[in-house]
Amino acid sequence: MIISPVTLLTQDQVERIHQTSLEILEDVGLLVHHQEASEIFVNHGCLVNTETNTVRLPRSVIEHFRASIPPKFTFYARDPNFDRTIPDDAPVIVTASSAPNIIDPVTGENRRARSDDIARIAHLVNQLDGYDVFSISTLAEDASADQLTLARLYPSAKNCLKPLRISGPAADAETILRFATLVAGGEEAYREHPFITHHYCPVVSPLTMDVDSTENLLFFTEQKLPCHPSIVPNAGLTSPLTLTATLAQGNAEFLAAAVLEQMVDQGKATIYSTLPTVADIRTGAYAPGAIETGILHIGFAQIAHFYNIPCGGYVGLTNSKVCDAQSGYETSMSCVAALLGGVHIFNMAGLLDALMSFDFAKAVIDDEIALMLKRLMRGIEFSEEELALNIIAEVGPGGTFIDHMHTLEHMRTTALLPKIADREPHLQWQERGSLDTHAHAMLRAREILTAPNDAVFSEDVDARLRDEFKNLVAGDSLPPRGWESELT
Amino acid sequence: MIISPVTLLTQDQVERIHQTSLEILEDVGLLVHHQEASEIFVNHGCLVNTETNTVRLPRSVIEHFRASIPPKFTFYARDPNFDRTIPDDAPVIVTASSAPNIIDPVTGENRRARSDDIARIAHLVNQLDGYDVFSISTLAEDASADQLTLARLYPSAKNCLKPLRISGPAADAETILRFATLVAGGEEAYREHPFITHHYCPVVSPLTMDVDSTENLLFFTEQKLPCHPSIVPNAGLTSPLTLTATLAQGNAEFLAAAVLEQMVDQGKATIYSTLPTVADIRTGAYAPGAIETGILHIGFAQIAHFYNIPCGGYVGLTNSKVCDAQSGYETSMSCVAALLGGVHIFNMAGLLDALMSFDFAKAVIDDEIALMLKRLMRGIEFSEEELALNIIAEVGPGGTFIDHMHTLEHMRTTALLPKIADREPHLQWQERGSLDTHAHAMLRAREILTAPNDAVFSEDVDARLRDEFKNLVAGDSLPPRGWESELT
Repeated sequence: MIISPVTLLTQDQVERIHQTSLEILEDVGLLVHHQEASEIFVNHGCLVNTETNTVRLPRSVIEHFRASIPPKFTFYARDPNFDRTIPDDAPVIVTASSAPNIIDPVTGENRRARSDDIARIAHLVNQLDGYDVFSISTLAEDASADQLTLARLYPSAKNCLKPLRISGPAADAETILRFATLVAGGEEAYREHPFITHHYCPVVSPLTMDVDSTENLLFFTEQKLPCHPSIVPNAGLTSPLTLTATLAQGNAEFLAAAVLEQMVDQGKATIYSTLPTVADIRTGAYAPGAIETGILHIGFAQIAHFYNIPCGGYVGLTNSKVCDAQSGYETSMSCVAALLGGVHIFNMAGLLDALMSFDFAKAVIDDEIALMLKRLMRGIEFSEEELALNIIAEVGPGGTFIDHMHTLEHMRTTALLPKIADREPHLQWQERGSLDTHAHAMLRAREILTAPNDAVFSEDVDARLRDEFKNLVAGDSLPPRGWESELT
Repeated sequence: MIISPVTLLTQDQVERIHQTSLEILEDVGLLVHHQEASEIFVNHGCLVNTETNTVRLPRSVIEHFRASIPPKFTFYARDPNFDRTIPDDAPVIVTASSAPNIIDPVTGENRRARSDDIARIAHLVNQLDGYDVFSISTLAEDASADQLTLARLYPSAKNCLKPLRISGPAADAETILRFATLVAGGEEAYREHPFITHHYCPVVSPLTMDVDSTENLLFFTEQKLPCHPSIVPNAGLTSPLTLTATLAQGNAEFLAAAVLEQMVDQGKATIYSTLPTVADIRTGAYAPGAIETGILHIGFAQIAHFYNIPCGGYVGLTNSKVCDAQSGYETSMSCVAALLGGVHIFNMAGLLDALMSFDFAKAVIDDEIALMLKRLMRGIEFSEEELALNIIAEVGPGGTFIDHMHTLEHMRTTALLPKIADREPHLQWQERGSLDTHAHAMLRAREILTAPNDAVFSEDVDARLRDEFKNLVAGDSLPPRGWESELT
């Protein structure tokens, strides 16, 4: 357990950033392209310049609505055993989402992702203990134009009992709701336990609310369904090239979106979610794997703690194209930093190439990193029994603890026992084929994906969905061609 | 800058662990195999049972001598520009040391390391900005029986201006001192700026002081030269299988060694240095890459902060045999945890296979991790200029910061600009050969090792050494055979 998280800002500095964000919203204002959002702001005490579409948000308005944001957020699951609430269940580990590409698990080719890939990913995420929430990892190239979202949602919901998180075009919002209702067996049943969380990036930095994502955020907020925004400043391009200013501007952007939610449904739960980056100023490259993302997450967490709002977002991403040392250290360094900074939710898993490609081995490796994060969060258990002075005295100088009952009693709890990390002697490792982590992880993925998936819908749920939505994708997690035969 | 490090123990728990350590030393005692050490303990108020060689250390004695340990420790370098003091210069990054094997940089074969490898490693460490101290990475298979230590020390000192850290058999202690004196040009000159720090593990857990390392620690302490012990409990084998008890026992072991130093030279600087591990209880495997090592480092750091002694040790090691994702995440996760826990010195770099093999690519990759740790330590700069409210107002909603003077002014300081991390677009990366981090890192190693080394001794220093020590190894950093030709 973390007794006290690391801090990189003094409390005075946190409050000065907060004040600066208020000054930004009141004096610089927000460009709001969404008409209804603009009207909501005005109806709750903000000022609009109708020529420029700039809305100014007085600090009293911000402070009033910020105060009603609850301190907790719950992800509901198709199976309530998988419900997760932050901060209580932190770290809540989520897949990173919406990559257009996938590394084909059999050929290794980097290609467009399809709905059958999503079914397999959902199956994998369902089986891996490190994961709490499945944010749909890829797009689906095979989706028909009228089922862009359904072709992702159906295989996900079908193969995974954990909470789902999705974004899609605003035009699909009603379809998602209808889909969820059919799975739950009725609207009331769904609203009691809404297993889909909706996620959007309504603010384009700097300080601009868009049309489509804002529409989505408003729709699901009006529906009183779980949703939250993410704020994505990129220092040097869309925010100033200092961490402090990026925190101040990003915080202003978060406050704008969060306060809009509160104006529609005061008391609505949300997440202080961010994906803060610093551009690689040599090339302008997007660099979400840089350590500055971890540092910024600690900063945002300090602000979120000041507001008492659960926090997190995208962290531990990587620019690497393959599962190599870079993908290992970029993924894990910012995650450990964020965890120890008191971040609650981590969209960290499965993607390579700066959110462009999913890889099954990466997802398995990140599950192991996730379990390490959870072990780290558990910290140091403390009791007189754990202190074991009597055992140390009994064993004595020069003795061994290996065969002591106290050791047996703690063998399942003290240390994480990893599944894919290699700890073999060198010779044994060589004899088993000198496999690297990527190869180990791919074997584990194959083991899972060639076994049946117990999580799938019952036949009547499936029938209801296929009756309503004609030409749904197959949505089954079948072993990729080439794997079954190799296994025999 | 870290305003406040993460804590996993309450202050009460830290103090209870301290009290438990005192109880262990007073009631259980320490098995001391070294006769002079035993006598020093007795002469300073401890009690010995001469039949069992067990020494009991009263808490008043411990508390008295603990209080005189200084809050700082300096590593002196051959070039004083590379002097480093902890905690002021933290994180101080050190290579992990004394691996018997090396992965041959040309053939990839895992073979015994030689003195010419050490010369190249010293050259590499001298050139990589992330490294502060060179703790000699490998043994030297080609060393003659009478030059086991010289065959490591000579190529190291010859090719690296940074502080050196070494361990060796006690029989070589006088030789090291003579070597250092010759390099410095006289004993007085050397003692004024002793560029070698001596490091030993005099306590074999549980609670046993050995002969050879204790002899070394006493020798260099009596000589008033920089030295410090490391404590290496392995929970489940040599300490109880709980983190709390491992902290209590390990702390007792540190106190025993540190207090012995103080009894010999009160006021002597030392380091609260540890390599704490939890055994993989399924197989008994040594698992220094496990996240528990990072957790234990946070715990030990809390105790060291309570004592006001600089701290750190071996952290971020890996069981992996190759530079893969596991080596990346194991190395970096515990390092980030330790850094944010307030650890000052990190023996983290260059070795694979649980300290068994050095790899040039790993050393280059770890340099990049080291630079990320240093960036993380720098934290979030805070000033009104950095907050940049006026710049945010000037650019305005929907604008861009890319071409603003404020961006230009911060482009060298805000973000680390990594040398080997790949941030290219996928197509470009493919066109350049789809290199992974290991390949990128090996190219960088080759670039460094095929260039001349400016750090080498002057000819007269070399002549003095060769005159005194006949049949010294060559000690030059020459490009490995096969690399020069490939470069053309």
